[in-house]
Amino acid sequence: MSGFETINAIINTKTIQQLHAKSPLIHCMTNDVVQTFTANVLLALGCSPAMVIEPEEAEQFAAMASGLLINVGTLTTDRQHAMRLAVNSANKAGKPWVLDPVAAGALTFRTRFCHELLMLKPTAIRGNASEIMGLVGVGRGGKGVDSLNTTHDALPAAQHLAKATNTIVAISGEIDYVTDGERTFAVTGGDPLMTRVVGTGCALSAVVTASCALSGDKLINIASVCAIMKQAGEIATQRCRGTGSFTPEFLDALCQLKQ
Amino acid sequence: MSGFETINAIINTKTIQQLHAKSPLIHCMTNDVVQTFTANVLLALGCSPAMVIEPEEAEQFAAMASGLLINVGTLTTDRQHAMRLAVNSANKAGKPWVLDPVAAGALTFRTRFCHELLMLKPTAIRGNASEIMGLVGVGRGGKGVDSLNTTHDALPAAQHLAKATNTIVAISGEIDYVTDGERTFAVTGGDPLMTRVVGTGCALSAVVTASCALSGDKLINIASVCAIMKQAGEIATQRCRGTGSFTPEFLDALCQLKQ
Amino acid sequence: MSGFETINAIINTKTIQQLHAKSPLIHCMTNDVVQTFTANVLLALGCSPAMVIEPEEAEQFAAMASGLLINVGTLTTDRQHAMRLAVNSANKAGKPWVLDPVAAGALTFRTRFCHELLMLKPTAIRGNASEIMGLVGVGRGGKGVDSLNTTHDALPAAQHLAKATNTIVAISGEIDYVTDGERTFAVTGGDPLMTRVVGTGCALSAVVTASCALSGDKLINIASVCAIMKQAGEIATQRCRGTGSFTPEFLDALCQLKQ
Repeated sequence: MSGFETINAIINTKTIQQLHAKSPLIHCMTNDVVQTFTANVLLALGCSPAMVIEPEEAEQFAAMASGLLINVGTLTTDRQHAMRLAVNSANKAGKPWVLDPVAAGALTFRTRFCHELLMLKPTAIRGNASEIMGLVGVGRGGKGVDSLNTTHDALPAAQHLAKATNTIVAISGEIDYVTDGERTFAVTGGDPLMTRVVGTGCALSAVVTASCALSGDKLINIASVCAIMKQAGEIATQRCRGTGSFTPEFLDALCQLKQ
Repeated sequence: MSGFETINAIINTKTIQQLHAKSPLIHCMTNDVVQTFTANVLLALGCSPAMVIEPEEAEQFAAMASGLLINVGTLTTDRQHAMRLAVNSANKAGKPWVLDPVAAGALTFRTRFCHELLMLKPTAIRGNASEIMGLVGVGRGGKGVDSLNTTHDALPAAQHLAKATNTIVAISGEIDYVTDGERTFAVTGGDPLMTRVVGTGCALSAVVTASCALSGDKLINIASVCAIMKQAGEIATQRCRGTGSFTPEFLDALCQLKQ
Repeated sequence: MSGFETINAIINTKTIQQLHAKSPLIHCMTNDVVQTFTANVLLALGCSPAMVIEPEEAEQFAAMASGLLINVGTLTTDRQHAMRLAVNSANKAGKPWVLDPVAAGALTFRTRFCHELLMLKPTAIRGNASEIMGLVGVGRGGKGVDSLNTTHDALPAAQHLAKATNTIVAISGEIDYVTDGERTFAVTGGDPLMTRVVGTGCALSAVVTASCALSGDKLINIASVCAIMKQAGEIATQRCRGTGSFTPEFLDALCQLKQ
């Protein structure tokens, strides 16, 4: 893996300990499908999730929370409005916010909105290869929420996007890449089974948001939580008998990684 | 079971293989309660779920997806509008779409909307006995989302509805019936425990949608996925210790049926 | 625990039997995060859940259901409108309704709405310590949806609230207190792990709603379902290996408590 840095087990353990110790309160504005799983993943890592979506409340809460997640799956015009207020509020309060551009590139309405959000300077962006390429305007788009490209294909787009918008981009897939446009971490591990359970990517974005609320190097923190999620995915894959038992095993593994 | 055809294990295995091989992308416009479970059921059978609800996006995506599911649980005026656009878009693109008339007959607003949707020629309709009877305007309605009638009671209504609207109607319950008004399949199996876990019926409707995207006889494909879901329900009931462990066992069973 | 009454195992068993026998149909207007879990908890206890949110339907259904739950998590202006209609409809039909004031005190918009709802005479209110204190206007608010106070801190506020609005207030936490302002039950048990799984409090509110639809002393019925949920939480904590396996174990335990 020459040219890429890798993240090690000691850093991962420290990141998990920091998540539990600081217990960041994460304001999740996310899609309808993954709300429960996202909340339970954050809780398993010692974080506090809160889903607040009404415009007035979203604006107020984004300034109070430790970080804000904007996930554009099941986007609506009403949620768009609330998301704009929340992002501006987070920015004003100096709180990190993360964009998960679900199916960007494939659907016009949300792609347009993601481009608008890019102007509001996300702290980080987490997507699959097709989404990151779709955001940049290269590639052939995804198949719904699934990627048709490898993360390696998407790396140049991610590096370009990170530099152009002064953000950190995490592309998740068989190998995750986390880049600020200068430095790039490659994170291996995980299992393809993770893509057959809804919400593993969306939940990762929530944990990326939590990692942005920790002290220390954001690039390393984000790469570290990518590694943590892959590690839990591997453990769960070994223990489960299908995608049904994967979910409880995955959350149990996240809890157990603490020790 | 004279007078009814039955579906056999060889057909079920072929249907599962076809689902995994074709991996239809299913546009689910469904209720708030069952989104995660619906997505995970489709994924366990090798299909790709995507929940897209904003009107402009729903219209665009319905033409791209392999099939569209319209489930009227937690219906709102906004969703109604998006559903209309999506259905018309699916029809224009020649894509199958399936109606799940949750609690039709019991609640006025959604019953009216279901009648409107019937004019837009659904490829199939999947409901419980009270819902199918409610749609036709016979029977005493359900108790919320639960059926107060047996599927056998509802069969004449289903056959009438199928003929009148040139669609296939699947009534699920202790025995499922799948009819185009001429031919009728009876599908036995399953377990009453399935009715004590939220979303098993709604998820079946999503899988019925996926089956409509396969090649071959739609009536047989739909009866076959009804049988597959019953089979997984039976396995899960044997393995679980209550309704909590039913859900992971059910999804695991769906995964394992592939082999 | 002098000064407080306690609830005993015989009463709990009778309450569970009554829930299964009467199978109350609970109209849940609740937040996006906990819908599936809430439905499955009600089903595990033999009740029928139904989530109906469109204004016209919510008004119609609240009069048909056995009880109505109003949970203000993920509140929106549209849902507010539907909730007002539903509450007035439940009141007119003489049906019990329960308020779960999620994050009241912490967020202005929902606190204002909760105060409005208090004028509409809820049968019961179920919240954590910070929420009950926030509703009364004492204390320092919660951290998002988590409580920063003990239930004992909140008991005076709960007793005041119960008297002032002629309702029953249940504060859940390490010890649950259930009070009508005159009599107070203390319910011990449970496990802190329950706070690390999203929706245990929200689901309790749904079961409290169901208990209000039973015959007998409402105060005792509510205290009893608090005890039942704590008991299931204890069993699940003993059996699980983390927060992931907690959920199926909790639902299984609720099913098994029937015997």
